[in-house]
Amino acid sequence: MTQTKIFGHQNPDTDTITSALVTADIEQQLGNDAVARRLGEVNPETQYALDHFGVEAPAMLEPLEDDAPVILVDHNEFQQSAENIENAEILKVYDHHRISNFRTESPLYYRAEPVGCTATILKKIYAENDLTISREMAGLMLSAIISDTLLFKSPTTTEEDRKAAEALRETAEVDLEEYGIEMLKAGASTSDKSAEALITGDAKTFEMGERSTRIAQVNVVDVDEVFERKEELESAINEQIEKDGYDLFVLVVTDILNSNSRVLALGSHAKSIEKAFDVALDENSAVLEGVVSRKKQVVPQITKALS
Amino acid sequence: MTQTKIFGHQNPDTDTITSALVTADIEQQLGNDAVARRLGEVNPETQYALDHFGVEAPAMLEPLEDDAPVILVDHNEFQQSAENIENAEILKVYDHHRISNFRTESPLYYRAEPVGCTATILKKIYAENDLTISREMAGLMLSAIISDTLLFKSPTTTEEDRKAAEALRETAEVDLEEYGIEMLKAGASTSDKSAEALITGDAKTFEMGERSTRIAQVNVVDVDEVFERKEELESAINEQIEKDGYDLFVLVVTDILNSNSRVLALGSHAKSIEKAFDVALDENSAVLEGVVSRKKQVVPQITKALS
Repeated sequence: MTQTKIFGHQNPDTDTITSALVTADIEQQLGNDAVARRLGEVNPETQYALDHFGVEAPAMLEPLEDDAPVILVDHNEFQQSAENIENAEILKVYDHHRISNFRTESPLYYRAEPVGCTATILKKIYAENDLTISREMAGLMLSAIISDTLLFKSPTTTEEDRKAAEALRETAEVDLEEYGIEMLKAGASTSDKSAEALITGDAKTFEMGERSTRIAQVNVVDVDEVFERKEELESAINEQIEKDGYDLFVLVVTDILNSNSRVLALGSHAKSIEKAFDVALDENSAVLEGVVSRKKQVVPQITKALS
Repeated sequence: MTQTKIFGHQNPDTDTITSALVTADIEQQLGNDAVARRLGEVNPETQYALDHFGVEAPAMLEPLEDDAPVILVDHNEFQQSAENIENAEILKVYDHHRISNFRTESPLYYRAEPVGCTATILKKIYAENDLTISREMAGLMLSAIISDTLLFKSPTTTEEDRKAAEALRETAEVDLEEYGIEMLKAGASTSDKSAEALITGDAKTFEMGERSTRIAQVNVVDVDEVFERKEELESAINEQIEKDGYDLFVLVVTDILNSNSRVLALGSHAKSIEKAFDVALDENSAVLEGVVSRKKQVVPQITKALS
């Protein structure tokens, strides 16, 4: 009998890596020969969680042979999965996403629930099968819930995620809030990114009346860390304004924990920010209380102010 | 809020009809506004089960509007489902088949397990949600398990199906064996079928050396019921032999409960049956112990005897 490989999606995040490890623990307790694997590099947030609970990262997945037995976690769409997945034998799936571009030749175990995180489902599997949750596995599941729900701030959070986290934190022996913020900080660090990367990573151009506005957004847990590099960012932004002829460039630095944003606005029409949000710019910057969504809370307001 | 419609596949069988009714009971106990529907006529086996437990058949499904909330049971492939299913909002699926030609736009609850029957999964859902199983619902689930596993004789039967049935029969207050046989008999009745229908329904022609052999098979729970019409069947078979020039015509009447078959053999080479199965024909008929598969236990043996 070939060993079953358990893995999540490409560009792995914390839920995908920890769910593979947790599912491997479940399978092993059920007496099955199965191990966790990963499809890409472990990100800093996930590494923080693994280090905290003293668990080793899974090894990279070996090329999948035809009919290789596998278990998918945190994804099902084949284009997000391993190469040759269409010829593998998918035994089980644990997921919390829509189902698309997925098919099997044989009946399988498929468990999807519309919750915020795969770990919330896996916690139930322990209970349903009367298995033991170790401190390490509780810690990994808790980390996944914190990550996927941004410490319960994301609108994808469900009551079940909250309950699962509440129950897991005792076994994991951590202060939920404190550990959660530290872990998210480890992942949302901007110190290793260039100013160029920060202002281009997630940026879009909007034509507003006769004006061309560029709006970049960065999600962080430490806004100050970004604004410590304000001068460096300003000169990078001014370069872009000159090169591409924007009338306004807004960098929106969103505090994912407190659900606020601080903006940096440059260009000939920077003052329109004051009208748009009823704030005063202080050295090109202002705090926008309660603003987290570019699409719903930034673009329409600036469009109106500029027209 | 629109009422959620729950339904199984086209050409409904007992598992599909009862799983829709049972899932409706689960949803209602969970406080959701949901009702069972069907996509086709209720067959005699299912009607027997419904009558026995005093439950009304679901109504036919109304045409599905776009975005109508639905729950699928006992199937997932869109071509087996309702018209316009691709534009409905699929909230949940309970199934025990492979997944194929299925997709959603949003996350959903999907529960598939590789067991013999959807009802075996539904029984767990009651337990997981701490819901009460009434005598009626226990009876319907038990009927579905008996139907899909042919009273545990089918190779698709799993240990979980057996356990579920064992637990349900107490609540259902029936003698498992006795009730099961009566229900299967109600469905496998041949009395409403013409002799013509019985010998053509599932018949194939095989060229064996220089001989042309026609082999028809009928699955029943009451072999005698078929052989009470032996004369009628013989004249229908002889008509076919004359018309199509067969050297041998074998009607295989398979007892799905006892895993035996009784054959009726006519034509110029009927005696080859004696050689093929080491039996003596008595008035053109013989019992073949342990024979249920035409492909594996009938065709090769006759081919050898005729060559």
